[in-house]
Amino acid sequence: MNKPNQNSIIILYDKEKDKKHILNLATLPEKYSTANGIIAKEKILNTDFGGRIETHLGYEYILLPATLYDFIMKKLNRLTQIVYPKDAAYIILRLDIKPGDVVIESGIGSGAMSAVFAQIVGEQGKLISYEKRQEFIDNALKNLKRFNLLDRIEIKHRDIAEGFDEKDVDAVFIDVKEPWLYLENAIKPLKNGKLIAVLVPTTNQVSVVLKEMERLPLIDIEVSEILQRFWKTNPDRLRPYDTMSAHTAFLIFARKINY
Amino acid sequence: MNKPNQNSIIILYDKEKDKKHILNLATLPEKYSTANGIIAKEKILNTDFGGRIETHLGYEYILLPATLYDFIMKKLNRLTQIVYPKDAAYIILRLDIKPGDVVIESGIGSGAMSAVFAQIVGEQGKLISYEKRQEFIDNALKNLKRFNLLDRIEIKHRDIAEGFDEKDVDAVFIDVKEPWLYLENAIKPLKNGKLIAVLVPTTNQVSVVLKEMERLPLIDIEVSEILQRFWKTNPDRLRPYDTMSAHTAFLIFARKINY
Amino acid sequence: MNKPNQNSIIILYDKEKDKKHILNLATLPEKYSTANGIIAKEKILNTDFGGRIETHLGYEYILLPATLYDFIMKKLNRLTQIVYPKDAAYIILRLDIKPGDVVIESGIGSGAMSAVFAQIVGEQGKLISYEKRQEFIDNALKNLKRFNLLDRIEIKHRDIAEGFDEKDVDAVFIDVKEPWLYLENAIKPLKNGKLIAVLVPTTNQVSVVLKEMERLPLIDIEVSEILQRFWKTNPDRLRPYDTMSAHTAFLIFARKINY
Amino acid sequence: MNKPNQNSIIILYDKEKDKKHILNLATLPEKYSTANGIIAKEKILNTDFGGRIETHLGYEYILLPATLYDFIMKKLNRLTQIVYPKDAAYIILRLDIKPGDVVIESGIGSGAMSAVFAQIVGEQGKLISYEKRQEFIDNALKNLKRFNLLDRIEIKHRDIAEGFDEKDVDAVFIDVKEPWLYLENAIKPLKNGKLIAVLVPTTNQVSVVLKEMERLPLIDIEVSEILQRFWKTNPDRLRPYDTMSAHTAFLIFARKINY
Repeated sequence: MNKPNQNSIIILYDKEKDKKHILNLATLPEKYSTANGIIAKEKILNTDFGGRIETHLGYEYILLPATLYDFIMKKLNRLTQIVYPKDAAYIILRLDIKPGDVVIESGIGSGAMSAVFAQIVGEQGKLISYEKRQEFIDNALKNLKRFNLLDRIEIKHRDIAEGFDEKDVDAVFIDVKEPWLYLENAIKPLKNGKLIAVLVPTTNQVSVVLKEMERLPLIDIEVSEILQRFWKTNPDRLRPYDTMSAHTAFLIFARKINY
Repeated sequence: MNKPNQNSIIILYDKEKDKKHILNLATLPEKYSTANGIIAKEKILNTDFGGRIETHLGYEYILLPATLYDFIMKKLNRLTQIVYPKDAAYIILRLDIKPGDVVIESGIGSGAMSAVFAQIVGEQGKLISYEKRQEFIDNALKNLKRFNLLDRIEIKHRDIAEGFDEKDVDAVFIDVKEPWLYLENAIKPLKNGKLIAVLVPTTNQVSVVLKEMERLPLIDIEVSEILQRFWKTNPDRLRPYDTMSAHTAFLIFARKINY
Repeated sequence: MNKPNQNSIIILYDKEKDKKHILNLATLPEKYSTANGIIAKEKILNTDFGGRIETHLGYEYILLPATLYDFIMKKLNRLTQIVYPKDAAYIILRLDIKPGDVVIESGIGSGAMSAVFAQIVGEQGKLISYEKRQEFIDNALKNLKRFNLLDRIEIKHRDIAEGFDEKDVDAVFIDVKEPWLYLENAIKPLKNGKLIAVLVPTTNQVSVVLKEMERLPLIDIEVSEILQRFWKTNPDRLRPYDTMSAHTAFLIFARKINY
Repeated sequence: MNKPNQNSIIILYDKEKDKKHILNLATLPEKYSTANGIIAKEKILNTDFGGRIETHLGYEYILLPATLYDFIMKKLNRLTQIVYPKDAAYIILRLDIKPGDVVIESGIGSGAMSAVFAQIVGEQGKLISYEKRQEFIDNALKNLKRFNLLDRIEIKHRDIAEGFDEKDVDAVFIDVKEPWLYLENAIKPLKNGKLIAVLVPTTNQVSVVLKEMERLPLIDIEVSEILQRFWKTNPDRLRPYDTMSAHTAFLIFARKINY
């Protein structure tokens, strides 16, 4: 048996329309109204994951546990461009993020990358997120709370021009408009030998970041972009979808040395 | 201060040639011979990460901590195609792997994906790896031991046609030649509502996997491929490298339901 | 001076909205109504290409000659998927099409590829287009007439299962649902040593075509796909557009031998 | 019957090694030595295209007519980066090149793009190629002569800073290091409403070209890059090749207006 509990984030999956409705049981009303009839919260709590739930009109949904991926793609309230899963995942691996790590990011954006960092560092780890705009903090907080990740995130309402408080963190991630202005500050809290990642959407920004990095004690610089192409799932007519995302961002990684 | 210890995996980075030499201090001789002279292990243990180390001939290396990424790309002894970081990272995120998770994979290959799973599930988590070829097990063991990840990996020398022992695992990853033969078995140990990932290099295999998936209690199927394009780091002549990897594998994800 | 004539295909380019309106002067009414006011045909005939034309309401358009590219992308009435310029162009070069060449294609689709073949073979060359569906012929004829290319195209209303009439043509292009059924017929009219191209959207089709090609006197087989990524034109924020076409078709080329 | 003549460019195709040897019969010795034995020129002249030719040692080649594509990819002597077929083909279509057109290019490079222009404009058309380095002219001349395209090409040994002689040409193509310096000159010979193409390898160059284009009477600007991915031809294990070209150049197109 694997049932949701009062704090679960669940999916009601509409198989017919291939559509996912992501819900937080903690805030769900006792009678939840779908477009196809009402479902009692009680009923959801008594159904195994992977099982069917019918509305009072007999419309069928499948109950699934929501993954962080579902949450980012379908439920996150976006005030900004988000870091996409293909990029977020590579950033995690390339920055060598592990359970227990302490990571700094700035800014918080809509909280997508924050959520991924928080999930991977786990309960023993910590994400410190610097953000200067209160509206972004408020929105991201709401997003991260929904996915029960707030316990391991500390948000600092601060302009990073003023510097960072931490020392000896395992990784730093910078996703702001003019990252070159803050790079010198951003590598100070980083352990020697560890990596910083910078995400920018334009080639002009890549050039300025690279120029600034040349000036700083950073080596082993990598610039890349990641493209993901989704394919249709008809086995007899296998082919990619007609369109794809052509660009999200350029990813820049560098390693801090001590001289 | 952030120095290596007797068990650290370190990089001697040759900045001039932009080349990384990855070493395990646990097995390093007291006098290590580089192509440019000798370095005493003692000297490495007494140098901060991010610092310079000179050989007895005065050639300079930079001491860095090795990341899992470095290890996979530069040090893994390969008997098979490996799962590349761009793919491995996305698999982690898409399968919703977290610290503490229990994951099954088959086969073990050269241990690249195993290493990533093991790093992310952490000390509280566990990877069970099924593999029928002893030579792959031996090689992967050696690889994983080098990176100090063996404590959280259990290897089972077994043909998965005979089924899996586990129950209620958080994710399953299948990377074998004819995955369709084992899918029915492979989803049995999986918690309801959780995801399986299948990796195959050819479109013919994608088609057969999709056909088999249609027959099984699996929904929400996704097929994609990920391309990573690296760029040269000259800020004044910014452009991609001339060549790139054109293909590693197709990634297929599906979610288990209970009917 | 470079003015349109009574048969010109022209563009009224709305610079403000970056939108092209493609018009055939041969069929344009004396008073043409735009969304922003009326333009007299007379006025168009008396304006140099590259010059401004105002409607009676003072809205400004720029008069431009329409290229075949404009025509295919903006004006072609589509009953089918068209062959996109990136693919059509490569097919021309790979099939070695030159002025004066005689080319066979089947089917005619909406006439996009036909138009490109017709333009490149020129007045001395010829395109013979086999098509079994009358509605496609009617639509393509209308499209090709609009761009004044009909003089060098011969359309045959025929199922290619019945074979081809020609001998010693310079190139053959096959764009039908089950090309493998007709390949043996399709290479008969082709000069020895010359090339056939096959266009298919799915990998299943690629596999069957390749299998059939192995059986036939064809060598030097090439399979590829072409991706075009458009970039935004802001020099200070240079980056690709957010989305792109992920797939149009796989292109297969082979060369006929005589044994 | 379709035999080579004294001026044919032919391929001896080594099927076993999938290798093409491109030869110009005009300059071929009476006894041609392959790596696998001698072939008499006489024998080549008496063999139909698509037929077998054996060396005196019994090694088999297939006789094929060389296409322009073969010539560019296998035979062109390269002193510079060439314009690749995927790009060259799109440039032809996007610039709307037709038989009979008059086209200007600068520089001549190794003559790859020149050859494509020359083939498509045909005998009635003309390519005028400006190049300031004598060594490039000499090399390109040799290349173009080999493929019998010199009759329709005029080469001008000139720095384009001095301007162009022509008027009312159908298209202009610029492939030089600092194209922004010459754009104002380069559009002068162009018919109003017609297109110019600029090819550059770096994003920095794209930005400067775009800035200069904003200043000039140019509209309808397009920037793109074209990627071609080749697939292996095994129908039962269909998949892309492992590596691909990641970048050749950015292609910029714009249209001239008269104010």
